[in-house]
Amino acid sequence: MPKIIVEVMPKEVLLDPAGKSVMNALHRKGHSASKKSDITAVRIGKRIELHFDREITDKDLADAREIGESFLSNGVIEDVVKISSEN
Amino acid sequence: MPKIIVEVMPKEVLLDPAGKSVMNALHRKGHSASKKSDITAVRIGKRIELHFDREITDKDLADAREIGESFLSNGVIEDVVKISSEN
Repeated sequence: MPKIIVEVMPKEVLLDPAGKSVMNALHRKGHSASKKSDITAVRIGKRIELHFDREITDKDLADAREIGESFLSNGVIEDVVKISSEN
Repeated sequence: MPKIIVEVMPKEVLLDPAGKSVMNALHRKGHSASKKSDITAVRIGKRIELHFDREITDKDLADAREIGESFLSNGVIEDVVKISSEN
């Protein structure tokens, strides 16, 4: 199914307490996957899929960016980092 | 900064009430971006960035998949849909 994927992350200047907690837990658990200590930060954002019942056009991508910036994210604390499409 | 991006979505067979609400709101608002009615579904997942202070190796990607599946997502209701890296 054609879809547009809008990716939203907390702004880099802001703390991300949930991400910080995940990083601490990863380090604490010493997960079997090695070298968690090489992970210096974890940040958690959103991945929003817009599903279409037809082919996706360039206009849809532009519309998705507008929707992403005005509706799916909070511009005060979040950035739309990527808009992509998938068939 | 090198990072691995882990993308997690609710399983396709499950309802996504938050996504459904967003879709309804998009249709209701008749956002200036046209043809929202072509959007047949909205689904909301997570985008988790793991930041590294060094180059990312294939092993890191494999580790990230394991961390994603065992730690960053709930396998009962979510799928890890993509693991990618960015420099």
